[in-house]
Amino acid sequence: MTKKVRVVQFGVGPIGASMVRLMRQKGSLEIAGAIDRDPAKAGRDLGEVVGAKDAPWGIVISAQASPVLAKNVDVVIHSTSSYLANVMDELLACISAGCCVVSTCEELAYPFRKHPGLSAELDAAAKDEGIALVGTGVNPGFVMDKLVLDLSAASQRVDVAKAVRIVDASDRRMPLQKKIGAGMALEQFREQVAAGLIKHHGLPESVAMVADGLGFTLDDISETIAPIIAEETIRTEFLEVAPGQVAGVHQIAQGTFAGEDKVFMELKMYVGAKQPADTIELRGEPNLTLTIPGGTHGDIATAAVAVNAIQAILAAPAGLRTVRDLPLRYLPPGPHAWPLG
Amino acid sequence: MTKKVRVVQFGVGPIGASMVRLMRQKGSLEIAGAIDRDPAKAGRDLGEVVGAKDAPWGIVISAQASPVLAKNVDVVIHSTSSYLANVMDELLACISAGCCVVSTCEELAYPFRKHPGLSAELDAAAKDEGIALVGTGVNPGFVMDKLVLDLSAASQRVDVAKAVRIVDASDRRMPLQKKIGAGMALEQFREQVAAGLIKHHGLPESVAMVADGLGFTLDDISETIAPIIAEETIRTEFLEVAPGQVAGVHQIAQGTFAGEDKVFMELKMYVGAKQPADTIELRGEPNLTLTIPGGTHGDIATAAVAVNAIQAILAAPAGLRTVRDLPLRYLPPGPHAWPLG
Repeated sequence: MTKKVRVVQFGVGPIGASMVRLMRQKGSLEIAGAIDRDPAKAGRDLGEVVGAKDAPWGIVISAQASPVLAKNVDVVIHSTSSYLANVMDELLACISAGCCVVSTCEELAYPFRKHPGLSAELDAAAKDEGIALVGTGVNPGFVMDKLVLDLSAASQRVDVAKAVRIVDASDRRMPLQKKIGAGMALEQFREQVAAGLIKHHGLPESVAMVADGLGFTLDDISETIAPIIAEETIRTEFLEVAPGQVAGVHQIAQGTFAGEDKVFMELKMYVGAKQPADTIELRGEPNLTLTIPGGTHGDIATAAVAVNAIQAILAAPAGLRTVRDLPLRYLPPGPHAWPLG
Repeated sequence: MTKKVRVVQFGVGPIGASMVRLMRQKGSLEIAGAIDRDPAKAGRDLGEVVGAKDAPWGIVISAQASPVLAKNVDVVIHSTSSYLANVMDELLACISAGCCVVSTCEELAYPFRKHPGLSAELDAAAKDEGIALVGTGVNPGFVMDKLVLDLSAASQRVDVAKAVRIVDASDRRMPLQKKIGAGMALEQFREQVAAGLIKHHGLPESVAMVADGLGFTLDDISETIAPIIAEETIRTEFLEVAPGQVAGVHQIAQGTFAGEDKVFMELKMYVGAKQPADTIELRGEPNLTLTIPGGTHGDIATAAVAVNAIQAILAAPAGLRTVRDLPLRYLPPGPHAWPLG
């Protein structure tokens, strides 16, 4: 069939806008609508809000989900919050409208440990409606979990899995630079961490996905967050960081068994980072290392992974899925028939 | 359920033996039998033939397939030939016995272009019997195709895909070193190439899989094979290569459209290779490079990929499958319940 897949964007923040622009380029997708409660966006043309050159598109962003979801929608791309509890109503509304969901909610990427009850509720609702949903993005959802499991296909035995992601935030958008504390004094950084305002979400989810995927039993998953202090002045398009100020975050999540690391994930995201890269290491038989020099760009790749996941979620069995079990790959620009061969 | 998956090894050559040893370590698998027509192996104990320390196993290698396949077998690991036409009878025997199949037959990894008739025949037979089969291994089947498509999940747009694999054959088994022509005079190498005796199989299959997976239209897939000439003396455990002699092979396969490369695959496999590595490059938005320094060891990884594919092929829809559409990952040593979570 050559019918286009009808998609809706739920949440038109910076990442949501990036996903909308990408979906607009895919000849096999038709953007059926968009949802955002922000009064600065609701009621406006989607193309204008996402900064498209060919705006207006004649698609008005709705503050209300239900009228948009009622438009015979196949897949909702959902991008509103990192916290699963905050988005349950949104996800359940999509599910009960019979829409598959790809969400960048970090806690949804592998929610079974932190939110077993919510996971079961979503899974049951999705199975009732015969649709599938998944949480993904570049991290969690790809570079520190899915790609680790992909690489493990070449392993005869895996003893320990590591993933280290070093991101240079210098050329990233301003909210991201602020979110990692760039330019803050140490004390302010600590206050913001304590208030839950500074944190990249998803490392424990990646640890859990990798551990379960590799058959590791864990006693515990721990998580730390520390500042990276600038040693010299760093200037970005948006701010300046003086020596002694915070340049960004250094987060570690460890899955341990009997006091030993089984899964180790390290994220350094800061302005002025040297040699940004994503590195995966599997210790076992054989030892395997995989590197993406320069790293995968967070915003570009998150939009890509989520939009590319559309074909996998449409083909997936009903229920709450994770990228562990979905074959992810590029969605060609099309137009082309669905399902893809 | 905690019932073990019953596996049979079809073909107990060097790679087959490696897969048998690996399967023996997996607590969720039970080796139900083995098949090999070689009179030097048939009738002997499988554990002894594969050099297991705990041999004998009480499993006798059978020259005949049918009595072994009749033993309520779930999955056959098949490793007898690179040519699909040569193994059709073997594969059809497995299928009609109701066994899923994971085969290292290179031409089976993506057989639709070279063998459309045989592909259709296998697909129909597999669907009739409700089982799935797949061709895989490290190459084709993982590092130059599956991993390329895995990485493409982070791409907004892919224009060109490249994979370069540089293998140092110095520490590989003797048959492999001979198979790539190491130590031959140039003239002898050319004769052996012309006779079809020197060639790594599978590059055009990887090109086709990647092209189809990325939605590329190709005019043509071309393939070249050339010698790599030793510049200095190279000594391995098994042979010596003098300057001017052949050190190994240099193969290139290109998928082109309108005279431009869309998919480019390059394999250099020779003794004394410097900086062996697997490198994948996706040109597009963004440009992405992935490297496995040192490369994935051909024999170890082929056995791993094939055995690890057991869980995916058991979960796959009936028919002829390819790794393009299967989520591959490590099979933990177990024992554990099937299907895996």
